[in-house]
Amino acid sequence: MSYGTLFLLPCPLGDTPAEQVLPPQVVSVARRLRHFVVEEAKTTRQFLAALKHEQPIQSLHFATLNEHTPASELPALLQPLLAGEDVGIVSEAGCPGVADPGAQLVALAHRHGVRVVPLVGPSSILLALMASGLNGQCFAFHGYLPVEEAARKKSLQQLETESFKRRQTQLFIETPYRNDKLLQALLTLCRPSTQICIAADLTLPTETILTRSVADWRKAELPKLHKRPCLFLLLA
Amino acid sequence: MSYGTLFLLPCPLGDTPAEQVLPPQVVSVARRLRHFVVEEAKTTRQFLAALKHEQPIQSLHFATLNEHTPASELPALLQPLLAGEDVGIVSEAGCPGVADPGAQLVALAHRHGVRVVPLVGPSSILLALMASGLNGQCFAFHGYLPVEEAARKKSLQQLETESFKRRQTQLFIETPYRNDKLLQALLTLCRPSTQICIAADLTLPTETILTRSVADWRKAELPKLHKRPCLFLLLA
Repeated sequence: MSYGTLFLLPCPLGDTPAEQVLPPQVVSVARRLRHFVVEEAKTTRQFLAALKHEQPIQSLHFATLNEHTPASELPALLQPLLAGEDVGIVSEAGCPGVADPGAQLVALAHRHGVRVVPLVGPSSILLALMASGLNGQCFAFHGYLPVEEAARKKSLQQLETESFKRRQTQLFIETPYRNDKLLQALLTLCRPSTQICIAADLTLPTETILTRSVADWRKAELPKLHKRPCLFLLLA
Repeated sequence: MSYGTLFLLPCPLGDTPAEQVLPPQVVSVARRLRHFVVEEAKTTRQFLAALKHEQPIQSLHFATLNEHTPASELPALLQPLLAGEDVGIVSEAGCPGVADPGAQLVALAHRHGVRVVPLVGPSSILLALMASGLNGQCFAFHGYLPVEEAARKKSLQQLETESFKRRQTQLFIETPYRNDKLLQALLTLCRPSTQICIAADLTLPTETILTRSVADWRKAELPKLHKRPCLFLLLA
């Protein structure tokens, strides 16, 4: 018997309609799959209902994989694939496997020779990079910076120095209620010539993407970023 | 008079049909735009014809922006936007602004306060990262590594050391006719425990995505990568 395929199934970033951010073929795959590995079953059920899944939602199988899932539970998540069923990994928002726990199951699938198929959809990291106008030939995503002030200062200065040496765009995120504070730290700590891009609410009607030098940001009215999902990009 | 919007318009990676990799709304935007900034007009004309553009293709405006375009020509590319026309940047393959010259025009648009809107589509970098099972919370894309042997060796060893220190996935590419040679270099130079992912022909019927430790790769039959578009990923 042959194995199933593990599909990496992107979903919208927030309330964006699927036709804006998902190709028709991705919607077709989502509508026919019966097994899902998800961060949060409730969100995925709503997503699949909105896509008009072929089967009643309550007949579908949802297994949870999030930051609380112990590694010992991963083999059970692989079982349907080994039994020949196709499985879709769905993240809370955007592309699975990039900044979520899905990657662990993908790694296990590779070790068992299960085929992994990534599907096209919205990634806030990629959209921010495209729209920033900063260097897309050399870039790094760092996730969250340290919260503690001295550690954060050191980390930002290292990122800026490396960015300058390699012409490397640095991307990072913050817990949304601390976005405004991070922006302040950037404008205080970075060199006047360093370019900073802020990309908030990507693909949403309130999308805001602005790139300016630190010197220009210091003279500008700052966007309100409180509780908005936001990427920060820096090129020294 | 208000400015036009600069759309970053992805296109398929190779002969993949648009419905597999482009959301319907992205196709609608592409079909109504009349001004394009492109790497190569011929490819974009074929792409727009395949999408059934609303206007005759010969009535559309194509301006070229590639690695030979001098910076002095950028202001002319901005003109339609300042005159109120929407413009689409289209890359040779995948997402504009990531590993192509489009970023320069995006940067200029930001300096003039022109709105930049990134649209969803296929990015080989992102698809490879999703499907690799390697760390997607911390990663860096480096473009091409040095070609000269000693410099390449040094560069690979630096990337492996950094990957180990930061748990950072390293992504890079090679000129397609040298892919097999790069894979040999990776298997010779990297530590046995380092994970290597090869992602070739993404979104195409011949798509191949394999992740193994260097020790396992050394025992495996190697895929033939000659002239296939390919991403290499490494996690030490």
